[in-house]
Amino acid sequence: MATIDFIEILKERYACKAMNDEAVPQEKIDRILEAIRLTPTSSGLQPFEIFSITNPVLKEKIRPVSWNQTQVTDCSHLLVFAAWDSYTADRINYMFDLTNEVRGFADEGWEKYRQQLLSTMPQDDAEKSFQHASKQAYIALMSAMTQAQIEGLDSTPMEGFDPTAVDEILGLKEKGLRSCVMLPIGYKNAEKDWLLKLAKIRKPMDKMLTTLD
Amino acid sequence: MATIDFIEILKERYACKAMNDEAVPQEKIDRILEAIRLTPTSSGLQPFEIFSITNPVLKEKIRPVSWNQTQVTDCSHLLVFAAWDSYTADRINYMFDLTNEVRGFADEGWEKYRQQLLSTMPQDDAEKSFQHASKQAYIALMSAMTQAQIEGLDSTPMEGFDPTAVDEILGLKEKGLRSCVMLPIGYKNAEKDWLLKLAKIRKPMDKMLTTLD
Repeated sequence: MATIDFIEILKERYACKAMNDEAVPQEKIDRILEAIRLTPTSSGLQPFEIFSITNPVLKEKIRPVSWNQTQVTDCSHLLVFAAWDSYTADRINYMFDLTNEVRGFADEGWEKYRQQLLSTMPQDDAEKSFQHASKQAYIALMSAMTQAQIEGLDSTPMEGFDPTAVDEILGLKEKGLRSCVMLPIGYKNAEKDWLLKLAKIRKPMDKMLTTLD
Repeated sequence: MATIDFIEILKERYACKAMNDEAVPQEKIDRILEAIRLTPTSSGLQPFEIFSITNPVLKEKIRPVSWNQTQVTDCSHLLVFAAWDSYTADRINYMFDLTNEVRGFADEGWEKYRQQLLSTMPQDDAEKSFQHASKQAYIALMSAMTQAQIEGLDSTPMEGFDPTAVDEILGLKEKGLRSCVMLPIGYKNAEKDWLLKLAKIRKPMDKMLTTLD
């Protein structure tokens, strides 16, 4: 496994605007998926699933509902991040049960926390729940982009798509999921990628930071 | 700068439950802030600000509205991620103007995209805007946790606080900002940290992943 300088990774990474259709070795994708899986989330609930799409028919269906962005079909793997549409008791209990099983004991404080979540989260407004779950997926999005860069791959974080249409294509509603962000992963088409040669723009630190000493 | 294996970083990182009040050298915090600043965001708008708090009086005020979590006062630097409460034309124009300034030219396609955002985002419902901006802050949260781990520091991603109360303490409303997540950064108190010795729990890959070949 390659070692990295994270600040350099952030500087080198960019949103790839054109890909060349070349296949990415599966072991590289597997490490990206592992980075997603290991990402921290609120209460450790990991409230999202990943759809890894190489099927060309599915990609062709998703592209027109994604502002016709070419990376959707010209990537190797299209990752769709699909967040839980609600925090059901079953979903919460699964993670707490798994925790007890792996750790080999049930902790009193932890069980209290389970009850606290069970008494609040499943009753939350559906949109509030989905937004909360989506945010956790966005944490994992950064992990995926980081690992993709380490693997020498290009990727494109993508919000520009019709989530309802993507949900329908992938049958997400029936699974209690809603698409929230996509990440095509592949290799750049350097000739066609207009963003490749342009400088990365970030606001200066003093526009972002307030120090309260 | 240390090089890292990102998967190892993810395995080693954990949500620190007790800190020891030791000060973190500012250059380490500066690199964490730089990682936040370099993080990709939707349309490159970077729709959040960071409040870096070392002031003990402020920390003492924030702790009781954060479920009395001890890391709020026992950390070295408390980072508060404050997302834009709306996408105003001024905020959008700032980033597009900065882009033109740095790149030294105004691109037609880019200017069209500016107009597209100006004709939609400022009119969006305030809650929708804030949720969208918050998600971008969550991408940066992962960058901050990653760099903190590289720096040999401990951190605690924290949603368990009363955002309205934190907004009031920091005067965020007047700035058009709303707190969305916090990250105390410091050094663990190994004796008091109950989570330190417990196994990290993640759901198995087959519970997260659907492959569509």
